[in-house]
Amino acid sequence: MVVKSQIKLIKSLLQKKYRSQHSLFVVEGVKTVRELLKSDILSYQVYTTDSSLFNVDESLIQQITEKELKQISNLKSPNKVLGIFEIPKPKTIDFSNWVVALDDVSDPGNLGTIIRLCDWFGISNLLCSKNTVDCYNPKVLQATMGSIARMNIVYDDLFNVLKNADVPIFGTFMDGKNCYKQDFNESGILVMGNEANGISNKIDAICTNRISIPHFGNSKTESLNVATATAIFLSEIRRG
Amino acid sequence: MVVKSQIKLIKSLLQKKYRSQHSLFVVEGVKTVRELLKSDILSYQVYTTDSSLFNVDESLIQQITEKELKQISNLKSPNKVLGIFEIPKPKTIDFSNWVVALDDVSDPGNLGTIIRLCDWFGISNLLCSKNTVDCYNPKVLQATMGSIARMNIVYDDLFNVLKNADVPIFGTFMDGKNCYKQDFNESGILVMGNEANGISNKIDAICTNRISIPHFGNSKTESLNVATATAIFLSEIRRG
Repeated sequence: MVVKSQIKLIKSLLQKKYRSQHSLFVVEGVKTVRELLKSDILSYQVYTTDSSLFNVDESLIQQITEKELKQISNLKSPNKVLGIFEIPKPKTIDFSNWVVALDDVSDPGNLGTIIRLCDWFGISNLLCSKNTVDCYNPKVLQATMGSIARMNIVYDDLFNVLKNADVPIFGTFMDGKNCYKQDFNESGILVMGNEANGISNKIDAICTNRISIPHFGNSKTESLNVATATAIFLSEIRRG
Repeated sequence: MVVKSQIKLIKSLLQKKYRSQHSLFVVEGVKTVRELLKSDILSYQVYTTDSSLFNVDESLIQQITEKELKQISNLKSPNKVLGIFEIPKPKTIDFSNWVVALDDVSDPGNLGTIIRLCDWFGISNLLCSKNTVDCYNPKVLQATMGSIARMNIVYDDLFNVLKNADVPIFGTFMDGKNCYKQDFNESGILVMGNEANGISNKIDAICTNRISIPHFGNSKTESLNVATATAIFLSEIRRG
């Protein structure tokens, strides 16, 4: 059974304010909950219609009915499980490997896709400006497909952190150097900007390199979506 | 003024069945409507709260109020204009340049992003299996950001068309050859599969090459989103 106070807690965690206050976040779906249970992220409570699907401590798991799951779920079609997990404390960023930095990315789907891309390309540190959408937003978590469990995500003053990082900073712009002609080192920071405005002037000023993806053919598209552009830059960085 | 029969027509065009019947589709937003007005696609009617924004024949444009726009719009926050355009007749696919083929891509956002990517990378022919989501679906159009105006999109029996195409067919799989080690020719077909199931066995059997994007680091992500994977493959094909 799910009691009223639990429902209230779960619903409150849809808002960033309460996620920060309780230091908890909610994920749904068998695949993502399993990924998180396998990870270093601490579980708080797992509500499921089929506890045989999850190999965890009995005290953590609560068998519920379909109807109860519908009550607590944020999805139109709930998928067997809703888990509450503790927001991990961010670790210091390791600048000896590549880092992705986001300057006010605002769309949850884009952030989720970027997290999944970082995981694919073996980048475990993601630095987000304070105005970047919260990575524990349910829409972000859905798009990460569990990759969030393997990432160290830090929200901080982007300018201050970048200014003090002793590695090249590659800002992505419409008028930068052709990224196919750029040599990438063993380490560096790839900065991606806001969907509408790109990288802010303040951050632009401290980028050591400005790079672009060239147009081809008679293309008149003004820009690429930030998540697909990130895919192309990470591919360039890793392909060698 | 927008009369009842017009509202009825516009609302009906949310459904593929009526789009096919009338051979019309709806787009919203200043940028996308402008792109379509500049293109070869024929305009049927433009409803706008500010006709000074559009340089078109008076007979095509209808000045309406904010309230009327809200009545006909499919968006939460309508953006000054709703245009109705004629669905263009697809042209024969030109296989002398690269072609992207989609085997049952079902998510409208993914299709829209792929159309925008094709436009960016100078690929003007997109071949879709009959089960691929309709490219005149409003969510697809929103994600294309106007690129739809510059693309030739053909829905056909994928197997029959590919079987008869006299160019290499590059299927994308989890277990294919490293795409960074693949030479790409001047022409070919890049096949992308369904979000959940990938490329079907029938299409797999006629691919001349099977390619993959390699994992990096300790990544455990199972797959990339089809739109971000398309971004990486198109970048590889064009970068030379």
